[in-house]
Amino acid sequence: MSQHTNQSWGGRFSEPTDAFVEQFTASVNFDRRLYHHDIRGSIAHATMLARVDVLTLDERDAIIQGLSEVEREIETGEFPWSVALEDVHMNIEARLTEKIGITGKKLHTGRSRNDQVATDIRLYLRDEIDAIDAEIARLRRALIELADAEAETIMPGFTHLQTAQPVTFGHHLLAWQEMVARDHQRLRDCRKRVNVMPLGAAALAGTTYPIDRHVSAELLGFERPAENSLDAVSDRDFAIEFTAFASLLLMHLSRMSEELVLWTSAQFAFIELPDRFCTGSSIMPQKKNPDVPELVRGKTGRVYGHLMSLLTLMKSQPLAYNKDNQEDKEPLFDTLDTVKGCLRAFADMIPSIEAKADNMFDAARRGFSTATDLADYLVRKGVAFRDAHEIVGQSVAYGLEQGKDLSEMSLDELKRFSTSIEDDVFAVLTLEGSVAARNHIGATAPDQVRAAAQRARDALAALGEGR
Amino acid sequence: MSQHTNQSWGGRFSEPTDAFVEQFTASVNFDRRLYHHDIRGSIAHATMLARVDVLTLDERDAIIQGLSEVEREIETGEFPWSVALEDVHMNIEARLTEKIGITGKKLHTGRSRNDQVATDIRLYLRDEIDAIDAEIARLRRALIELADAEAETIMPGFTHLQTAQPVTFGHHLLAWQEMVARDHQRLRDCRKRVNVMPLGAAALAGTTYPIDRHVSAELLGFERPAENSLDAVSDRDFAIEFTAFASLLLMHLSRMSEELVLWTSAQFAFIELPDRFCTGSSIMPQKKNPDVPELVRGKTGRVYGHLMSLLTLMKSQPLAYNKDNQEDKEPLFDTLDTVKGCLRAFADMIPSIEAKADNMFDAARRGFSTATDLADYLVRKGVAFRDAHEIVGQSVAYGLEQGKDLSEMSLDELKRFSTSIEDDVFAVLTLEGSVAARNHIGATAPDQVRAAAQRARDALAALGEGR
Amino acid sequence: MSQHTNQSWGGRFSEPTDAFVEQFTASVNFDRRLYHHDIRGSIAHATMLARVDVLTLDERDAIIQGLSEVEREIETGEFPWSVALEDVHMNIEARLTEKIGITGKKLHTGRSRNDQVATDIRLYLRDEIDAIDAEIARLRRALIELADAEAETIMPGFTHLQTAQPVTFGHHLLAWQEMVARDHQRLRDCRKRVNVMPLGAAALAGTTYPIDRHVSAELLGFERPAENSLDAVSDRDFAIEFTAFASLLLMHLSRMSEELVLWTSAQFAFIELPDRFCTGSSIMPQKKNPDVPELVRGKTGRVYGHLMSLLTLMKSQPLAYNKDNQEDKEPLFDTLDTVKGCLRAFADMIPSIEAKADNMFDAARRGFSTATDLADYLVRKGVAFRDAHEIVGQSVAYGLEQGKDLSEMSLDELKRFSTSIEDDVFAVLTLEGSVAARNHIGATAPDQVRAAAQRARDALAALGEGR
Amino acid sequence: MSQHTNQSWGGRFSEPTDAFVEQFTASVNFDRRLYHHDIRGSIAHATMLARVDVLTLDERDAIIQGLSEVEREIETGEFPWSVALEDVHMNIEARLTEKIGITGKKLHTGRSRNDQVATDIRLYLRDEIDAIDAEIARLRRALIELADAEAETIMPGFTHLQTAQPVTFGHHLLAWQEMVARDHQRLRDCRKRVNVMPLGAAALAGTTYPIDRHVSAELLGFERPAENSLDAVSDRDFAIEFTAFASLLLMHLSRMSEELVLWTSAQFAFIELPDRFCTGSSIMPQKKNPDVPELVRGKTGRVYGHLMSLLTLMKSQPLAYNKDNQEDKEPLFDTLDTVKGCLRAFADMIPSIEAKADNMFDAARRGFSTATDLADYLVRKGVAFRDAHEIVGQSVAYGLEQGKDLSEMSLDELKRFSTSIEDDVFAVLTLEGSVAARNHIGATAPDQVRAAAQRARDALAALGEGR
Repeated sequence: MSQHTNQSWGGRFSEPTDAFVEQFTASVNFDRRLYHHDIRGSIAHATMLARVDVLTLDERDAIIQGLSEVEREIETGEFPWSVALEDVHMNIEARLTEKIGITGKKLHTGRSRNDQVATDIRLYLRDEIDAIDAEIARLRRALIELADAEAETIMPGFTHLQTAQPVTFGHHLLAWQEMVARDHQRLRDCRKRVNVMPLGAAALAGTTYPIDRHVSAELLGFERPAENSLDAVSDRDFAIEFTAFASLLLMHLSRMSEELVLWTSAQFAFIELPDRFCTGSSIMPQKKNPDVPELVRGKTGRVYGHLMSLLTLMKSQPLAYNKDNQEDKEPLFDTLDTVKGCLRAFADMIPSIEAKADNMFDAARRGFSTATDLADYLVRKGVAFRDAHEIVGQSVAYGLEQGKDLSEMSLDELKRFSTSIEDDVFAVLTLEGSVAARNHIGATAPDQVRAAAQRARDALAALGEGR
Repeated sequence: MSQHTNQSWGGRFSEPTDAFVEQFTASVNFDRRLYHHDIRGSIAHATMLARVDVLTLDERDAIIQGLSEVEREIETGEFPWSVALEDVHMNIEARLTEKIGITGKKLHTGRSRNDQVATDIRLYLRDEIDAIDAEIARLRRALIELADAEAETIMPGFTHLQTAQPVTFGHHLLAWQEMVARDHQRLRDCRKRVNVMPLGAAALAGTTYPIDRHVSAELLGFERPAENSLDAVSDRDFAIEFTAFASLLLMHLSRMSEELVLWTSAQFAFIELPDRFCTGSSIMPQKKNPDVPELVRGKTGRVYGHLMSLLTLMKSQPLAYNKDNQEDKEPLFDTLDTVKGCLRAFADMIPSIEAKADNMFDAARRGFSTATDLADYLVRKGVAFRDAHEIVGQSVAYGLEQGKDLSEMSLDELKRFSTSIEDDVFAVLTLEGSVAARNHIGATAPDQVRAAAQRARDALAALGEGR
Repeated sequence: MSQHTNQSWGGRFSEPTDAFVEQFTASVNFDRRLYHHDIRGSIAHATMLARVDVLTLDERDAIIQGLSEVEREIETGEFPWSVALEDVHMNIEARLTEKIGITGKKLHTGRSRNDQVATDIRLYLRDEIDAIDAEIARLRRALIELADAEAETIMPGFTHLQTAQPVTFGHHLLAWQEMVARDHQRLRDCRKRVNVMPLGAAALAGTTYPIDRHVSAELLGFERPAENSLDAVSDRDFAIEFTAFASLLLMHLSRMSEELVLWTSAQFAFIELPDRFCTGSSIMPQKKNPDVPELVRGKTGRVYGHLMSLLTLMKSQPLAYNKDNQEDKEPLFDTLDTVKGCLRAFADMIPSIEAKADNMFDAARRGFSTATDLADYLVRKGVAFRDAHEIVGQSVAYGLEQGKDLSEMSLDELKRFSTSIEDDVFAVLTLEGSVAARNHIGATAPDQVRAAAQRARDALAALGEGR
Repeated sequence: MSQHTNQSWGGRFSEPTDAFVEQFTASVNFDRRLYHHDIRGSIAHATMLARVDVLTLDERDAIIQGLSEVEREIETGEFPWSVALEDVHMNIEARLTEKIGITGKKLHTGRSRNDQVATDIRLYLRDEIDAIDAEIARLRRALIELADAEAETIMPGFTHLQTAQPVTFGHHLLAWQEMVARDHQRLRDCRKRVNVMPLGAAALAGTTYPIDRHVSAELLGFERPAENSLDAVSDRDFAIEFTAFASLLLMHLSRMSEELVLWTSAQFAFIELPDRFCTGSSIMPQKKNPDVPELVRGKTGRVYGHLMSLLTLMKSQPLAYNKDNQEDKEPLFDTLDTVKGCLRAFADMIPSIEAKADNMFDAARRGFSTATDLADYLVRKGVAFRDAHEIVGQSVAYGLEQGKDLSEMSLDELKRFSTSIEDDVFAVLTLEGSVAARNHIGATAPDQVRAAAQRARDALAALGEGR
């Protein structure tokens, strides 16, 4: 027998692996987090092998019993992880064989590490997706409830970061909710494609054992076995698609973060974040920094980077499995951790945002935010829109010169720009009037915001049921 | 009146735009390709405005008639495009007003360029998605039919680009088909989220006109109006999601391309591509280069780049619309063109691939490709898999020394490594036997390949109907 | 003779290129912008060939004369570009041969399109780098002069977008200048590696003609011929390194843009941008949008994308030239255009920024920006820094409660937090005192800012001379 | 006093940090690897503070002595790391204060964590760059020596992965060397910009203490203090530039890896990699997989991803420090580890590559690799190059039909295509003749390869001295 008793492939080799190479190519330091799903997959595989008479019932039971002990050892920290055994799979199998003898070696019948690892990752990812799904739901609920509570709070709406038109804070929060709702949909779509079983593809071509892949799929909760063995062992679409979902989600969180940072600045002062979500400075005693949104914004880069990493990884790879694919795990794992952390931080933080309604209102009153309303008023008096726009533009230029907002001008002053302006103009130029007048589906009127919040609640509930 | 008669926002400004800035910020050179969808959107908007009595029926008809003339001018190349008019929208509206007078200015009532451009892009993208959907279907059909025809053609299956186990060429082609089938699904999922209407969001907050967004949505074939006006004008998820779909698709095409390039090399010589898909060298007269797959492989970078571009674009943008968003179009348009070109090239080329079956078979016979079969044989004789693996490893080491494949060893030679080997071993060591023995769903046996091709045909047909 | 008279490689081929493939693989629509450098390279090549007696002097002169005519045709728009001729090189050579007969065909002796295109791009890029170098210098000068003029203008310095400590506006502008100065250095380093000549590498292995590459290199202003022919035709590092430079530059411009957008908002109101660098809204008559910085910020994504595109392109390419490499041009060209446009816009805009010094000063007075000065004061009175920090933190908490800045508290109030505080504290709490006290190299005191501006001027001048 | 005794900024805060937020925002789990450079920076800072009389000599000595003890504790694993203390800096300072009392708190005088962390990373990165520099030199030496040894070994040169012209294996290896030589240069250029000192920038604006930054810079081996404090604390260019260098390096290693994988395939069989750099399969006993090059190729994605991550991180960040920047460390650290591991693996592996010269030679003999030589021969006989190309193209088409290489055709057969062909043609059609005839700088003739190897040796030596 070969000297390479601890490796799964030694017979053909005339010298042992170089010590640095052994460490360089080993994955056990990061793939060990798959241990639970590896064992779960092995139990299903052993159960199926017994069902088709490749294992006896006693062998199956010994394997399942042994694997349970191994799992306990891992969870209590007693398990002797070994880099020389390369990966989580060989570590567990070697330990199983130590425990139950040569029956342990039979577990690998009819499978390969190629289909085994692909199965493990999908099982793991599926569980993580479900946890993330719940956190997204929690964040959406937080946004919807805060939006409903702030349905009448008026703030300036911005385009180009210039005051554009008054909106309600609730309306703004529901815009955030819409972003996350799309992420939620994408996550569900992604899950469908994750939930397909590679097991049975063996190394690349299937196996000569009389396996029944439908049995394994059912035991593991997969929707179906993968249709093609070469594809099954080499496909990493699920990791890329998940990371693309995560990139969009983080992009959305970065946008919310940017606004939270702006709003907590002295210049905006639209909201207050509780001290417990902020940190201070080691040198400037007055500082209260919005660390959580800043850090989440920074983590956007991390997730975009992982997406690019995985796309690059798979570019131009010939079929089927190549060692390159070992590099799929760390980007995926870190993306999962990042997504969970950021969602948790946001879902915790959002309900505690305190709007400074007076500051918001004052800001909206500045900056000619009702200029569009004046233009619309003129149109209703029979002026063509493009001409009304020109007229209001000139009155704004006048206001800038005089330091007066539109609502602060006298009727005489306003009439200089158009004789169509009459006394009823002032109702149009209030913030409340402006906001209430945008009264159709998707618009900012308080009633519309409350109705939209209710639709969002219903949609979220329906999604929960549909699961 | 202001001197800026050609711009839509001059009243407030005291000096004209800098000439270089005008050109630097204009988008008409690339957004003019939206002209048809812009006009289509405007016609629906005018129709809706008439329905809610903001326009008279005569005004509506004049607008529709004028827009039709404008479209004809564009299609015949007579249209006077102007950079000073910034973008496709202002170019068309200005021309309309030239044609029909001040009624033309009324078209913009109750909308803004912010919701207009978002609507145009979605309409345009939806049409392009449908064209791409058809090309994917064509590529899938080509792969399925070629796979069916090559269901018995034996080639070496590779892992790590080392000969692993014999597979059939048809099986390999169906692996490609699976990749593209997932892309097809993702495209459909993406389309759902594209098909939502921003129109009516106006600049950011909705409008004070009594618009009916359900009417516009129905006229334009959108599933529903967008739920939130701030989100509607600032959302570019659809472009990112589409580009993420495209990145996965191109990644898949890059993998196929890599294999096509390998297979046409003198070293592999597995296939022949027709001359019409290849080009030569200006200096080396013997060259016949697989340009099409090489170029497609190269275009992968282009699409990945566009994805990164769009993700970067949207990172940290505060609500609602910012000028940054103008940068969404070129990456999206180029992605669309690239995807359509690559799919067309592949769908045309695949049916004309000529397998060199003898070369494939010879290659599979080399490299101990049936070593796993020997190991499985030993297991069936009662040897534990891990021990069988060791035994076969040693016989391979012997074969390398002696220059003999397993099937070329005598029974005596084989018996040196295990007394369990008997005369029936040689049936196991043939390529046909090896392939036929992998006979379960997803595996490489010819019968399985044909069955899988039929399931793939059915799935494709079902998708067509589901549309 | 073959029917493929218009292609450079037809003899071996039995059918013409597919019409769609011809268009799909052609590059002439984007590589034609290399025409001047292609002709320049060809003239040098012909000159060298005559020098080593491969061409006669008459042949050389005919070629040079013919190429000059071709260039004139291109510049006057008379040149008959043809997609069937694939690229700029074949278009020019074919036209040359039409003009001067079979001597035109001799021009390609001892070279290949592989080394030709690599030479063309490097020549082109080198010229563009020099143009960009000049624009960077112009932008740096603008920043230095504005910084010098604003060396005493006090504004709040931010960390975490929270008021941190007062700084001068000049100091802030010099921070921008430092960023661009590093970009300038990187551009120079990149240019060294661009300026190496591939010509003479021929297809991949060099040529059997007795060429003298040192002659060609000298004629074309290259520092030296490339050392290895395989590397010379396949190397695209220069494009990637340039795009990495550009990504850092755009990142810096995006940071400046972000601040310009913030500062023009109603909430900050720190600066005014002239109308000629802004645009308005088609619907909101009051809007004046900072389009130029927004658009530049958006273009960051475009350049990052091109970097990723080129890195992906080159990943895993075997030597030597592959068709994939044709995809190097568009990302590089667009990066060049983007960099030039953004630099020009910034270099034009910076000198016209108008600081609203009163608003800046008022903002700095708010937000406890001198809290660090109070802590430092306490340290000078013998308190350990960490304790001083704690004391000031408590006085800030008191100030927040009472709505008082530190400088607005009475001596009695301040003494509640530390008995070390005495009457001299108020000098420390003024903005002018705070700024002036940070008086060492790199710090914000006006004298330091003026000295730094002078060093920056000197460094820029030295760079100009070093060229 | 506040309850937050373990945090550096508690005085202003009314509630402790949320437990999850504390962990989410802490960096000590990854920034602790900076401990040595943090301590080194603190010792220099204390030394400088004593030099300018801010600390007494006794205080300085106590601090230095205390820091040395802390370092010993860290290295022996006794150090009590605490997540509540956020980062490596506060952990070390808190421990120092435990050890030496309130003098420990004085260490932070005149600096902030913002300039401290920027200094630490630069010191750390500078040391890592020097280690990487040595590994690159080792790899270059390995390539040069193998190239010299294989200067006469003939192999097919490829373009488009199609046999193009014969080259020598040494020539091919020197192409690799050129790639890495450029990386080496870029690393040196990057180091210049890393070696600039942020210390003294304090939080963002410099400090009111009379610090002498030239003293600190000299003590720490920095070339100069950073010119601008706002830039100094917010600049992360060095991390991006290093990661861009690393991306190019990994791209090059991915290209070499791709070729090593191809060459170890059964189809190419150009080289043998020692068993110690390969691994096997758990299921296929015959497999010997080139894991090291595959894994390095896969790691390309990881480094590209980190580059994209850092570029995204810095996009649009306003000055000065923001919490986002904490995200700079993990991508940088992982890039450093990856670069060092990949370089080590390659520098170890390259010298042990065993060329299978017979296989290479045979492959070069196939595929009409001397077709260009025949065309050049015809040109020397007076045929225009483009016509010669056509003639050879036709003879290749004939050869393909007849299954004959050019050198296997009779003179009569060859003469059918051109009467210019005479008996001396056969000397031209040998591989040795073809290779030897490409005899100019950069070309593949064995003498040129040996001369190029010598120049490469000299250049590497010169670089070593220039350091």
